[in-house]
Amino acid sequence: MSNFDLVLRLFLQLTVILAVCRAIGWIGTRFFGQTQVVSEMIAGVLLGPSLFGLVAPEVQAWLFPIKATVGGVTITHPSMSILYVLAQLGLVLYMFIVGLEFNPEYIRGRAKSAGLISGAGIVVPFALGALIAFVLRGNADLFQPGLSGWGAALFMGASMSITAFPMLARILYEKDITNTRLGVVTLAAGSIDDAIAWCLLAVVLASFQSNPQIAMMAIGGGIAYGLFMVVVGRGWLRGFEWWHQRGGSAADEPGVGLFTLLMMVLMLCAWFTDYIGIYAVFGAFILGACMPKGQFSALVIEKSEMVTTSLLLPVFFVYSGLNTQLGLVNTAGLWSLTAIIVLAAIGGKGVACLLAAKISGESWRNALIVGTLMNARGLMELIILNIGLEKKLITPMLFTMMVTMAVVTTLMASPLFQLLYRRQEADATA
Amino acid sequence: MSNFDLVLRLFLQLTVILAVCRAIGWIGTRFFGQTQVVSEMIAGVLLGPSLFGLVAPEVQAWLFPIKATVGGVTITHPSMSILYVLAQLGLVLYMFIVGLEFNPEYIRGRAKSAGLISGAGIVVPFALGALIAFVLRGNADLFQPGLSGWGAALFMGASMSITAFPMLARILYEKDITNTRLGVVTLAAGSIDDAIAWCLLAVVLASFQSNPQIAMMAIGGGIAYGLFMVVVGRGWLRGFEWWHQRGGSAADEPGVGLFTLLMMVLMLCAWFTDYIGIYAVFGAFILGACMPKGQFSALVIEKSEMVTTSLLLPVFFVYSGLNTQLGLVNTAGLWSLTAIIVLAAIGGKGVACLLAAKISGESWRNALIVGTLMNARGLMELIILNIGLEKKLITPMLFTMMVTMAVVTTLMASPLFQLLYRRQEADATA
Repeated sequence: MSNFDLVLRLFLQLTVILAVCRAIGWIGTRFFGQTQVVSEMIAGVLLGPSLFGLVAPEVQAWLFPIKATVGGVTITHPSMSILYVLAQLGLVLYMFIVGLEFNPEYIRGRAKSAGLISGAGIVVPFALGALIAFVLRGNADLFQPGLSGWGAALFMGASMSITAFPMLARILYEKDITNTRLGVVTLAAGSIDDAIAWCLLAVVLASFQSNPQIAMMAIGGGIAYGLFMVVVGRGWLRGFEWWHQRGGSAADEPGVGLFTLLMMVLMLCAWFTDYIGIYAVFGAFILGACMPKGQFSALVIEKSEMVTTSLLLPVFFVYSGLNTQLGLVNTAGLWSLTAIIVLAAIGGKGVACLLAAKISGESWRNALIVGTLMNARGLMELIILNIGLEKKLITPMLFTMMVTMAVVTTLMASPLFQLLYRRQEADATA
Repeated sequence: MSNFDLVLRLFLQLTVILAVCRAIGWIGTRFFGQTQVVSEMIAGVLLGPSLFGLVAPEVQAWLFPIKATVGGVTITHPSMSILYVLAQLGLVLYMFIVGLEFNPEYIRGRAKSAGLISGAGIVVPFALGALIAFVLRGNADLFQPGLSGWGAALFMGASMSITAFPMLARILYEKDITNTRLGVVTLAAGSIDDAIAWCLLAVVLASFQSNPQIAMMAIGGGIAYGLFMVVVGRGWLRGFEWWHQRGGSAADEPGVGLFTLLMMVLMLCAWFTDYIGIYAVFGAFILGACMPKGQFSALVIEKSEMVTTSLLLPVFFVYSGLNTQLGLVNTAGLWSLTAIIVLAAIGGKGVACLLAAKISGESWRNALIVGTLMNARGLMELIILNIGLEKKLITPMLFTMMVTMAVVTTLMASPLFQLLYRRQEADATA
């Protein structure tokens, strides 16, 4: 495969990926009141072995080759590496943008009810996830051999506790209720939950390193990175806003020089957090969260969001879908297990948050809205699951079950929210 | 090399690439009145074997590995393929944006003087380039064996005739003289020259195919593509503007769905023109040029330009620099030949355009400005040269000489223009 052939194939892959994402996205939003993200999750699964590979195995294997043989040795096909790299680049940019949009001010003033909801949204799904993992821990079909019961419990707990924070924020923003009491509490609870779940995952990844030195580097390095960014980095990053408002380097177009510099910092943070063994997405998110929220960060979002979400992120969904093999879940027993996982996810997260919201004084309807939104796993779940698969914590079979859970919980969210929200509006005008 | 290692290295590569581009860019604009593009051309050369590889060969070879060995077989290192793919994706997006910014209206009304200048700017450098190629055609150090004298002459002619149209447009835009007589004539002449040079290159690439069927496919397919886009495609593409002004798909953020669809069309055009054997950059440029110029195209430029020019294009400059080996030009004879090429380029393009502008009624100063701007080769030249190297028309030695020519002609342009332009302003106020 020459470089020329690889590029040729990539153009075709991107054409197919974008066409399918767009088509499913159109059907999903038009007829089922779905969000773009769930449509793309499904598009990814459809392009993988679960549908495309079932219907036209040769075409699928030609368009998305997994392995290549060179001199008698089987290696990852370079085309797959290229998709992986593009997906990671997209994720890093995306998580950086999510961080830029994350405003710690959300939490202030609503700390009590947000704390109760987010606490319930972590403790209950975590406990249920850990329980499931503990029961199944010896099963080599689900967890990679070598993963301790403790590691399995932590990973399942963390991945059950995830909230699709960016999606939640987008739904609230689209309905223009970000600044209502309901919006603020949900945003605060969602962001706390995600932050905690990511920290837990960092601990899992770190503790899974067989070498204690590597685990030390991951935990110590991660804490050092976080502290450095919050204590020192935030001050330095204010320089971007200051320099931007002074007009930047005179000979440049507005913002170009600073944007390049910021991308350099982003790549450095991504490299560092990848290198120490936590993940580039953490580094990117923390950098974004530590950036001052001003004109420059708004410009960066404005200028990088569309290429990231429309061109690069679909590659991640498809890469994830290529690893999802619904065909592996092929017995009644395995489907029952999948159903148990889905129910535990909904019961653990959705119901627990609903009850916590009710206890903290929301109406039943608002509590239901909070539960519904917190329950959606979205893209965040796929990120965690892909890390688990890449780091060889879980098997393709458990990966597939968990992706099913992520799709189902995300599918539920938007129509349920719209139903509840319309009723609420109807009540308000009655 | 696992996928994880490849991503890890890419983050580090991008950190270094962006840091060096930014540093050289800052020095260039701050102290030498240079444009960002020439700074990045130089940054690319510095990161290649010509400087970084000379000073710290092991570090350079580790950071930018060229070859890997698998099972006793030497293959292109996947890390190099990844850089190549990112660079090509950046180029396709960039040429698409250049096409979007290209307005055929420029040419109307100034056809006569623009025609004279662009004619001189094609015929003279083409003749000089072809002459040089004809004299040197048998030299296996410069041209790949198998390239006919005719092919060598065409390639050298076309690559001497290139104008850095996007850079020229940007300089005129920055000085706010796009709509003056001088601006319009230069823009028109530059765009005509570039279009002709690209067509010539398409013919070279097509004619170099040893198989006449492949050549037919390239020439016939290229003409068919161009005709289709102008006759049918333009009408269809108007749908984007129409749909965008109707508000797009209701559930989307403004433009997201249409943007994804457009990216899909872009990837399809890139794939098709690559597949038939002309190049993806042509497909992208023609698509951009055929798009209606309205709110939607402005939105697309706005949303994709910064990631393209600040994050992806630097990768192309560095990829190009990795192929530039100044060390190959190591004798007085070879340096003399390089000097001849540089002089022929300046004499052929700059001086010929200057004289043509003078003949068509410009003042000497304005004619000098036209000659200076038309003479810059910029990024466009690097694209052609990389195609020539990739398609095995020219050797790394001639590639290096031509890159030197591109850097010198681009370096000259901005300071000369500023000198002449300041004098003109001083005269006007005197």
